[in-house]
Amino acid sequence: MILKMDRLPIELPVPKNPSANDAAAIQELLGGKFGEMSTLMNYTFQSFNFRGRKKIRPFYDVIASIAGEEYGHIEVVSYAINLLLTGVTKRGFDPTTAPLADAVNARNTYHYIASGQGSLPVDSMGNFWSGQNVFSSGNLKLDLLHNFFLECGARGNKMRAYEMVSDPTARTMVGYLLVRGGLHIVAYAKALEKLTGVEVTKLLPIPDLSNNAFPEARKFMDQKLHLQLYTFSQDDYKQSGLIWNGPHPDDGQECVVIEGAIPGYPVPDLEEEPQLNSPGADDFDPQVFADMAKKMGIKYEY
Amino acid sequence: MILKMDRLPIELPVPKNPSANDAAAIQELLGGKFGEMSTLMNYTFQSFNFRGRKKIRPFYDVIASIAGEEYGHIEVVSYAINLLLTGVTKRGFDPTTAPLADAVNARNTYHYIASGQGSLPVDSMGNFWSGQNVFSSGNLKLDLLHNFFLECGARGNKMRAYEMVSDPTARTMVGYLLVRGGLHIVAYAKALEKLTGVEVTKLLPIPDLSNNAFPEARKFMDQKLHLQLYTFSQDDYKQSGLIWNGPHPDDGQECVVIEGAIPGYPVPDLEEEPQLNSPGADDFDPQVFADMAKKMGIKYEY
Amino acid sequence: MILKMDRLPIELPVPKNPSANDAAAIQELLGGKFGEMSTLMNYTFQSFNFRGRKKIRPFYDVIASIAGEEYGHIEVVSYAINLLLTGVTKRGFDPTTAPLADAVNARNTYHYIASGQGSLPVDSMGNFWSGQNVFSSGNLKLDLLHNFFLECGARGNKMRAYEMVSDPTARTMVGYLLVRGGLHIVAYAKALEKLTGVEVTKLLPIPDLSNNAFPEARKFMDQKLHLQLYTFSQDDYKQSGLIWNGPHPDDGQECVVIEGAIPGYPVPDLEEEPQLNSPGADDFDPQVFADMAKKMGIKYEY
Amino acid sequence: MILKMDRLPIELPVPKNPSANDAAAIQELLGGKFGEMSTLMNYTFQSFNFRGRKKIRPFYDVIASIAGEEYGHIEVVSYAINLLLTGVTKRGFDPTTAPLADAVNARNTYHYIASGQGSLPVDSMGNFWSGQNVFSSGNLKLDLLHNFFLECGARGNKMRAYEMVSDPTARTMVGYLLVRGGLHIVAYAKALEKLTGVEVTKLLPIPDLSNNAFPEARKFMDQKLHLQLYTFSQDDYKQSGLIWNGPHPDDGQECVVIEGAIPGYPVPDLEEEPQLNSPGADDFDPQVFADMAKKMGIKYEY
Amino acid sequence: MILKMDRLPIELPVPKNPSANDAAAIQELLGGKFGEMSTLMNYTFQSFNFRGRKKIRPFYDVIASIAGEEYGHIEVVSYAINLLLTGVTKRGFDPTTAPLADAVNARNTYHYIASGQGSLPVDSMGNFWSGQNVFSSGNLKLDLLHNFFLECGARGNKMRAYEMVSDPTARTMVGYLLVRGGLHIVAYAKALEKLTGVEVTKLLPIPDLSNNAFPEARKFMDQKLHLQLYTFSQDDYKQSGLIWNGPHPDDGQECVVIEGAIPGYPVPDLEEEPQLNSPGADDFDPQVFADMAKKMGIKYEY
Amino acid sequence: MILKMDRLPIELPVPKNPSANDAAAIQELLGGKFGEMSTLMNYTFQSFNFRGRKKIRPFYDVIASIAGEEYGHIEVVSYAINLLLTGVTKRGFDPTTAPLADAVNARNTYHYIASGQGSLPVDSMGNFWSGQNVFSSGNLKLDLLHNFFLECGARGNKMRAYEMVSDPTARTMVGYLLVRGGLHIVAYAKALEKLTGVEVTKLLPIPDLSNNAFPEARKFMDQKLHLQLYTFSQDDYKQSGLIWNGPHPDDGQECVVIEGAIPGYPVPDLEEEPQLNSPGADDFDPQVFADMAKKMGIKYEY
Repeated sequence: MILKMDRLPIELPVPKNPSANDAAAIQELLGGKFGEMSTLMNYTFQSFNFRGRKKIRPFYDVIASIAGEEYGHIEVVSYAINLLLTGVTKRGFDPTTAPLADAVNARNTYHYIASGQGSLPVDSMGNFWSGQNVFSSGNLKLDLLHNFFLECGARGNKMRAYEMVSDPTARTMVGYLLVRGGLHIVAYAKALEKLTGVEVTKLLPIPDLSNNAFPEARKFMDQKLHLQLYTFSQDDYKQSGLIWNGPHPDDGQECVVIEGAIPGYPVPDLEEEPQLNSPGADDFDPQVFADMAKKMGIKYEY
Repeated sequence: MILKMDRLPIELPVPKNPSANDAAAIQELLGGKFGEMSTLMNYTFQSFNFRGRKKIRPFYDVIASIAGEEYGHIEVVSYAINLLLTGVTKRGFDPTTAPLADAVNARNTYHYIASGQGSLPVDSMGNFWSGQNVFSSGNLKLDLLHNFFLECGARGNKMRAYEMVSDPTARTMVGYLLVRGGLHIVAYAKALEKLTGVEVTKLLPIPDLSNNAFPEARKFMDQKLHLQLYTFSQDDYKQSGLIWNGPHPDDGQECVVIEGAIPGYPVPDLEEEPQLNSPGADDFDPQVFADMAKKMGIKYEY
Repeated sequence: MILKMDRLPIELPVPKNPSANDAAAIQELLGGKFGEMSTLMNYTFQSFNFRGRKKIRPFYDVIASIAGEEYGHIEVVSYAINLLLTGVTKRGFDPTTAPLADAVNARNTYHYIASGQGSLPVDSMGNFWSGQNVFSSGNLKLDLLHNFFLECGARGNKMRAYEMVSDPTARTMVGYLLVRGGLHIVAYAKALEKLTGVEVTKLLPIPDLSNNAFPEARKFMDQKLHLQLYTFSQDDYKQSGLIWNGPHPDDGQECVVIEGAIPGYPVPDLEEEPQLNSPGADDFDPQVFADMAKKMGIKYEY
Repeated sequence: MILKMDRLPIELPVPKNPSANDAAAIQELLGGKFGEMSTLMNYTFQSFNFRGRKKIRPFYDVIASIAGEEYGHIEVVSYAINLLLTGVTKRGFDPTTAPLADAVNARNTYHYIASGQGSLPVDSMGNFWSGQNVFSSGNLKLDLLHNFFLECGARGNKMRAYEMVSDPTARTMVGYLLVRGGLHIVAYAKALEKLTGVEVTKLLPIPDLSNNAFPEARKFMDQKLHLQLYTFSQDDYKQSGLIWNGPHPDDGQECVVIEGAIPGYPVPDLEEEPQLNSPGADDFDPQVFADMAKKMGIKYEY
Repeated sequence: MILKMDRLPIELPVPKNPSANDAAAIQELLGGKFGEMSTLMNYTFQSFNFRGRKKIRPFYDVIASIAGEEYGHIEVVSYAINLLLTGVTKRGFDPTTAPLADAVNARNTYHYIASGQGSLPVDSMGNFWSGQNVFSSGNLKLDLLHNFFLECGARGNKMRAYEMVSDPTARTMVGYLLVRGGLHIVAYAKALEKLTGVEVTKLLPIPDLSNNAFPEARKFMDQKLHLQLYTFSQDDYKQSGLIWNGPHPDDGQECVVIEGAIPGYPVPDLEEEPQLNSPGADDFDPQVFADMAKKMGIKYEY
Repeated sequence: MILKMDRLPIELPVPKNPSANDAAAIQELLGGKFGEMSTLMNYTFQSFNFRGRKKIRPFYDVIASIAGEEYGHIEVVSYAINLLLTGVTKRGFDPTTAPLADAVNARNTYHYIASGQGSLPVDSMGNFWSGQNVFSSGNLKLDLLHNFFLECGARGNKMRAYEMVSDPTARTMVGYLLVRGGLHIVAYAKALEKLTGVEVTKLLPIPDLSNNAFPEARKFMDQKLHLQLYTFSQDDYKQSGLIWNGPHPDDGQECVVIEGAIPGYPVPDLEEEPQLNSPGADDFDPQVFADMAKKMGIKYEY
């Protein structure tokens, strides 16, 4: 089970230039083969399916902790997409003005037809995320090797996505993912090292360019976010510390485990898009809620 | 972001008769069009994409709360599948004895080839869950109507899955889902009622048979689990109480919101399956962890 | 079985500005998850699979009648797409002039490679329509609820497609679909009302904007096309009248059943596209047909 | 547009031995790559997209006529499946008796979970029919060649499906399809002959075995059903006669066009399956309809 | 088994105007339903699965020979795509300059994210090639008919792709494929003629336009490449000559079989794209190889 | 380009007990995500797309050599499947005896309907191989890491497939693939070692069980087949020797490169299956070929 927080791990700036096609490209990091849906679901299923945990629980705990973090990653990519899509069409209630005319030439028409200018579990070509992206062999060494490869492949995608978009919303988000996904690469490498004695971390960086080339990533590394593995749990997964320790391969600083979640920031507010009837509850009278809230002692304002 | 707990909402009995084909059938409730992956991901994306929250936040809070619960549902179905698959092939390290011979005639060969007798995001025919199962139009009334329909469709699947399997592990799990999914049906119905004034709860039950026909469901209703909407959050989504209140349509008892998660039970231990090399780390020396644990003050036993 | 008519339900104007990308967008209404292929095939399969018809035949008759109409809807969307694609590339027999050069930048290249500037069962992203869009649970209440939701979702897509395109061919077609699909929404709502007593029609409109906001829809409502359920059959499905009666929720006018099909108009003529070798039978001598026609007493002119 | 008839082209016997796996196999003829959904949708889209009709209308008329017949083919396969699935599980309202226990080992679990023991647009492996099975190039010669191949491929599938099942319901249906699909093969061959002068009919039979090897097919050939092309239209597609004429390649008898539809038989009644809540409207009071029927002058009995 | 050659059948010119969208369009000829992946895999599987070869080995040999050639076709289309994609983005190591900014508006974002500006097994819409494009019925006549149709369909796609692009790299490649694919059409037609006596070659050309309309194709026909069936084998498939002989239907010249492969040309060199870290081994010291090469007597230069 | 040989790398025994479901399971090794279609196509596309070859050609040569071998692997798995399917249904020309009756309960009905008891590009669940299984990032280190993981994953599948089937045809084939795939694992590990200096081979075996546990694999290792990398080319890819050299991690024997292909054995003869009309050319007179062969000097016997 989980507990949700209405918070994102980072503060997302409002886009300077909302861009439908930037949002479409960024979808690769959400619903692509190497997107955050894939990392989330791979580790989640591997944690459910992990056999014979007792003796090797630290491996279980690392996988489960990272699974916990990945939820926040689908969240932060989705919000970045949503911000990039906010205001890209003409606002208003009158359909005859063809407020969505530009969408005809946009790369992802689902953003306007299937969603209300919002994120979807699709990749940059509009192909849907699929469960066939999940690998869960039950063999620990193979699963760890997969995860190490998956994170390196995901890093490649992030680097290229970064090179496609210039807007600070997108780049801040990608910079963050490069750092945290980078930590996951090292975590799986360290897990393989613990299991086999092979110095897997020496293969890094894969691809060959360092995270230092990305200013937005550097900013988060200055906050030591490449060093801190969060358990994303109040009480569990503490044996992660038996894997995640020792020097970081990039700068030799000490790797540390922190119990709980990244403190984070409140989620951004997403403006209404009336031409999409989103959310569309214009006739609803909020006073109904206000009255009830008062009676029930629930905090509600409008 | 989320916090994970190493707990399931219910205590799953060990199967009396582990059954490969029962497990294959139960996959429909995990990776089917109306399975828990679908409910989880629908509400998750709708919560990320929800525009114009302030005035109508109680709707957002209900969707987010239920999204939180659904994570525990993919978890409990996965564990039920894993338990049903434990021990269904011959154990041992020698491949020449054809320990997986029975798998040749099993309905889901992925359970033995792609996974280590573990759950996968597939349905009862082995087709993969897909992002096209996610609906997130951004229009509140339409999204709520979708969710109401989705939960009714899911209920139909659960009822039929129940009729396919007799093992107590599977039936306990399905009974639980009938009750909690039933609560979600009522929650979306009440949300539509609040939004429109139409008595949507009077359409229930859909399909026509009551949850009372399922003894394992009745057991959970006796614990009032059909009445308690958990926020699955420590601090957020409290305005759910402005939707989830008043009498329950089944028995007239009062609907109540409880902050946080269902207390639950520790997750079951999954035995090793050596013929699948799962987990396979037989050469690993746990003393390495024991020594390090001692040094780092981390609790670890083997 | 069916009888076909070489007629469309409405008269489609010739596009003022044929547009490849408008055509690509309109494909959503044909081959999308909520497109006319979906409505057609859902009701068609539900009618084939309907168990225990006798006592509740009016429900069967309504579903079958609407299934009949949907065929004309895939037809009218297809013709609109075909008209929008007519003439969008350079005409002629010489391939060296790169007559399809613009297609390289068009959103749907299948229109030029797989088809001869013609419609295909794909959506606005070029993803193919799939049978997984068909819901046929066999439970009447659940199937009706599905259909009600499906039509509301389809309405949302039509509204947004309308906002994307300005050409009168597309808008006339969408306006027509809004009215007739709107009638289907009300029909399924009334069916649920008859079955359960709940005032489902009061949930309308979903999404929140009225059809009155669309001038092309208003034109068809002035012809009372929102009030007339056609049986699309010579002799059958007459018990539809036991569901489709009483006041229309929009304007209180009386709902009426009309036996047979909408009178309609001849299908448009689609010009040749020689650069696509479409139809390409340039060496064929029509006199062969003329001679045979004369001998056999069949009407043929060229 | 179409007019529907509540009739099947043939009278389907009630199965002697309803069989879940026979039904699963027969699905190939409905939703397979070469199933009736494919023939229906190929000719339907080709007819919508046909450019430059006037001079070569007989080709258009033949394609449209056959498209009309194919609707009856998806219908007759669906009803055969539905009859084969009727009664294959234990009837009753009590889920605790595991009435669907056998379904766990059945080849197509969708028949019990997604449908109410009814047909679905899937093939014999449970894979969904897809729009990518539609070919509509717009080039007449290529489309005709495709159709000729498609029908030959479909014939191969029908022959093999016949060899898989022994029940008279299935074999009667397949025998009928062999004859009518065989007529379509000859029709497309004759169309190619008219267009090119090449004696395409001399390639037949493809595959090599004659329809005479199938007793149920012979029965329909004795009724001359291999000779009669129906227009499946009241008023249109009469120029089909300019293609469909002359001797049949099998027996030299004269090919004739008949206007309208095959007379056919009423559709079979499908029994209720209460364990599936299908149709499940047990609380509905039909007297409501009876009273209304009386008032409105509509015929209704229960 | 196969032996590979580091050679292409033709010499590909360097593009005058590298073009991302041209490359995206050309993908249809590689990974489309009628692309070279399909022809390769159809004949490959048919050759593996061919039953009862002895008596009818010439048919087997023709299919196997053509299967051998098709490998060179996926190769030449891939290289054409790779050349068209070379240099279309800004070169350099610094990601902050957004070197891939243009890719955001390109039709195939996979070219920049999933591949390093390289070919992928996708079609012009970015949909992946699928094994469902393989037809292998085991019935010789049906398989030959399929292959004849497949090649005609492929020819239609090539003609249209030619009309979309003007660059000499693309057109040279397409001209070559028109000639060689044209030979395959005639080969399957001759095979059907041998098997049935029907003059199938008289159906040609399909579609109706001759290869003579394409200057780049004429160039290869002047080299008699439309007349020479290569066995693509050192020792096998020689009985192809019992099918491939007699006059060519286009110009009456004699068809001849040549043992072995087309002589061909060295494969083009593909420049590095540093902004994609492709290939990215910048820290690798080639002297390691140079030293080892010297010691082992292997030729290596850098 | 390639040259084909009508030879398999090993001699396949005739199955003792042909088995439809064994064949269905073995399909995973052909068309599964980790099957031979995937290894073949991954390395093939990577070789086409390899940028900047000169300095790092040994890596290119290794990938290309292995790509060459994989063709023989899809071949040998296909033939094993074909042998396992030979004779599993009743032979004869009369369809009324239901010769395919058993196929109704078989796991892969495509084997009887789509193919003539022959292999198809599908996995053990009948899902089609897809181009999305191809990874070709263009970054050398990432591609090598992928290939290393892919081969380890493939090894896991082979081990489990071995444990499912006992027939010597299947086990001989799998034993061979374990050895040769094992060589590929080591080759990619050595490539990574050359590129990075990390001792990747020390991670082996993955999964944890040695190939020595498989008697059929040991037989091939006794022939030193785990040591010999073939270039699968007459003249090219010789720089593979700069990667493939030094001691083998399993037994310390020297790794050697051999130019050309494995000598191999003639392909097995596949018996006719008349109930499937496969191949079905019963009316064909081979004397036509015999006469022509004599005239043309081609060797042909029947």
